Amino acid sequence: MKSSYVPPDGYRGKLLERLIREKIRTWSIVKIEKEDGAHFEGVVLPRSVHTSDDYLTLKVDTGYNLGIQLPDDATIKEIGYRSGEYKIPERKVEKNPNLPNVTLLGTGGTVASRLDYRTGAVLPAFTPSELFSAVPELIEICNLTPKTLYKILSENFCPEYWIKTAEAVAKEIESGAEGIIIGHGTDTMGYSSSALSFFFQNLPVPVVLVGSQRSSDRPSSDGPMNIINATSLAAYGDLAEVVVVMHGTTSDDYDLIHRGVRVRKMHSARRDTFRTVGDTPLGKIQNRHITFFKKDIKRRGKLEDFYLDTKLDERVTMLYFYPGMDPDIMDAVIDKGYHGIVIIGTGLGHVGKPMYSALERAQEEEIPVVITVQPLYGFTHLRVYETGRDMLAMGVIEGKNMLPEAAFPKLCWALGHTQNIDEIREIMETNITGEITKREPYSGFTIMQGGVPDVYEYLKYKDRFSRDISEKYL
Amino acid sequence: MKSSYVPPDGYRGKLLERLIREKIRTWSIVKIEKEDGAHFEGVVLPRSVHTSDDYLTLKVDTGYNLGIQLPDDATIKEIGYRSGEYKIPERKVEKNPNLPNVTLLGTGGTVASRLDYRTGAVLPAFTPSELFSAVPELIEICNLTPKTLYKILSENFCPEYWIKTAEAVAKEIESGAEGIIIGHGTDTMGYSSSALSFFFQNLPVPVVLVGSQRSSDRPSSDGPMNIINATSLAAYGDLAEVVVVMHGTTSDDYDLIHRGVRVRKMHSARRDTFRTVGDTPLGKIQNRHITFFKKDIKRRGKLEDFYLDTKLDERVTMLYFYPGMDPDIMDAVIDKGYHGIVIIGTGLGHVGKPMYSALERAQEEEIPVVITVQPLYGFTHLRVYETGRDMLAMGVIEGKNMLPEAAFPKLCWALGHTQNIDEIREIMETNITGEITKREPYSGFTIMQGGVPDVYEYLKYKDRFSRDISEKYL
Repeated sequence: MKSSYVPPDGYRGKLLERLIREKIRTWSIVKIEKEDGAHFEGVVLPRSVHTSDDYLTLKVDTGYNLGIQLPDDATIKEIGYRSGEYKIPERKVEKNPNLPNVTLLGTGGTVASRLDYRTGAVLPAFTPSELFSAVPELIEICNLTPKTLYKILSENFCPEYWIKTAEAVAKEIESGAEGIIIGHGTDTMGYSSSALSFFFQNLPVPVVLVGSQRSSDRPSSDGPMNIINATSLAAYGDLAEVVVVMHGTTSDDYDLIHRGVRVRKMHSARRDTFRTVGDTPLGKIQNRHITFFKKDIKRRGKLEDFYLDTKLDERVTMLYFYPGMDPDIMDAVIDKGYHGIVIIGTGLGHVGKPMYSALERAQEEEIPVVITVQPLYGFTHLRVYETGRDMLAMGVIEGKNMLPEAAFPKLCWALGHTQNIDEIREIMETNITGEITKREPYSGFTIMQGGVPDVYEYLKYKDRFSRDISEKYL
Repeated sequence: MKSSYVPPDGYRGKLLERLIREKIRTWSIVKIEKEDGAHFEGVVLPRSVHTSDDYLTLKVDTGYNLGIQLPDDATIKEIGYRSGEYKIPERKVEKNPNLPNVTLLGTGGTVASRLDYRTGAVLPAFTPSELFSAVPELIEICNLTPKTLYKILSENFCPEYWIKTAEAVAKEIESGAEGIIIGHGTDTMGYSSSALSFFFQNLPVPVVLVGSQRSSDRPSSDGPMNIINATSLAAYGDLAEVVVVMHGTTSDDYDLIHRGVRVRKMHSARRDTFRTVGDTPLGKIQNRHITFFKKDIKRRGKLEDFYLDTKLDERVTMLYFYPGMDPDIMDAVIDKGYHGIVIIGTGLGHVGKPMYSALERAQEEEIPVVITVQPLYGFTHLRVYETGRDMLAMGVIEGKNMLPEAAFPKLCWALGHTQNIDEIREIMETNITGEITKREPYSGFTIMQGGVPDVYEYLKYKDRFSRDISEKYL
């Protein structure tokens, strides 16, 4: 081992020299003692190159990563090495001809990602046999083939990756996969699930995005339950849409199935962060049992009708209106040659009067401007008040009840197909895949957001939105 | 009447000539008949000058405003005049020495505003005696003096008005008002309530923002209940904070009391649109009875300690991060000389790697960059992952659980006091008036958002956040 010594990534200067001298590697368990008596124990991690020269990144027992300053008079010693703890016994898995074939595409990876839940790709980095060892329940569910596409943090998941991921999914479906799971970081999952929803035409099988809010090395990880439920849905769910499957509550009781274009990360840290906004979730999965709450679910279809349409123009931006907003930023956006703008307006979708000059300029230059609502719940409605009517006269396009997460990729996609402003308006104002609904259920605002009483309330109010509560048992 | 004929505002060309010929005024009730048999009846309203030449704006019986095209072969006739319906009998009100003195400041006004709920100033346009006739319950509550400050739509309520409003409030308090009510449009109410929260130092009395989601000419108006409850709180509430009082549910059962820096418009249209985000509402008001849910409420204080601090730098902007965001817009913001930037980042407060160059430039030029979270619920946490640690190394300031509505005015206010980046960081990262909390209650995410079961749930979970459920009866 020591012969192939590599110092941990990202360290510089005197601290790097010291780590090399002590032969301290990534995953070294070290003990640090400072002159003042302070002492630390933990696992050495790679470090951001932006960190100050003398800070060491240490994963401590609580599961958190600390940045610890290491002055000259402190001592640091390797007292162990952790990688062995992550060794997972391989388990031979035979393909079972009676089970459906499902592919799990990882968009993150590397062993390091197992310490970083946001990559959403904790499991995809494993080999198939390792995966089945870590989550043995999966063996009974289906023939699962994990493949690693790339390893990126979800905030770096840009439109280019939407296309690459869609192409990989299409390839798997065309090769006979009966369901697809995509491991994805949670930060931008709602944007990716929306983009994929516009790309897949006549999707024949479920495409399930799944992630984790707690890394797999923490006892509270939500990863295993989410992956088991996502796999159950991909393998058996009679559904052919892009959906997100994540914890419905902070307990490990059930996952919710969210339509890809109506889901939003609504809490920065909770395990039940994903919420269907302005609609009812499609259903829930509890102990692998699937219950659908809604009627208007696209069911599994024929492979021959399926095709991919990923034509995309990435030169689109989003602006967030605030009191006193000056038109200079929107002017800069037009100067810089953006092809489309989503404005997140206040209330029913308004901006202040000073913005009018920039709206007029966008209209003259035929740059589509789509309005969504800052409250997130509810519809744009620009025919009610003077401001809205002014805005309509200046050519803005009503985003209706599209979430920003759906309006942004949809405008990229519309501009990929046409530059004609009337055609773009038509595409943006027409519901394609559930991103615009006729109305929001009464319970769409208050109850779907409510975590503790929500299942109870779904049932109480179910007659208002669906009479199709069917149960499936695996 | 006909001698002082004035045509309705905003019309042009042939349609204007026609309206003049028919002597049709604003508030004329007209009947329109088209060649194809279509016919309409409604009240003529002033029109946006941006509307196409031949469209007439008509308020119809459903309460909505329609834009109706009037071709040459259609007929239009005045069949009545509506203003009489709005005549409210005046009622003489004697000052009652046993009741507290409260001032109601209107930030909207004009009779037209009574047809446009968003001005939030439906009542302030009335004379005191008209107001008591329209909502006679107010007479029993206090000596209420309504004053009209200005008449603007809330999307045009820019930082300049925050200052003007604060000065007007201070003047009233210094003249002996025992409570203040501010009628405000709902679109940007959360921004204004936050700004005022930072301006008032040692506030001695309640400052209550109130609005309406339905105009007073519609039977479903929420205005009367909101104004009665807001007045009760301003007159009797043992509270000295800036708060928002609006419907707690879609029924007329109770209003919630929201802390000014923790409240957000969460639905574009519902009457219960305002929600406390990431905390428990301060309390509720039902039939004028005030119930507090929380302990940490600032109580009424002495007038001599009160002062105003409205130093503000308005050259602040907000940017909304999205997948693939290019740094060119943030570069433009820096080029244009903005003094501060709030970035609404994904997840725990992240941006993608391409944004790093702009963050570095802001750091070099000592422009403060404050991060808040796109999920709205939860805290920034930039010490957990590589991206966050990179961002901290580039000098970004953690907004913690500040809402965008609070972070934006707070950064304007911080920059009004100092240009020193370390002092700005200190101000932004320190809780001043409840905009940053130590933790969010368990029920802050799921239940406060839930409308139907919320009061029940407050009580069920109250021990987790407060043991001070006191009741006040007027």
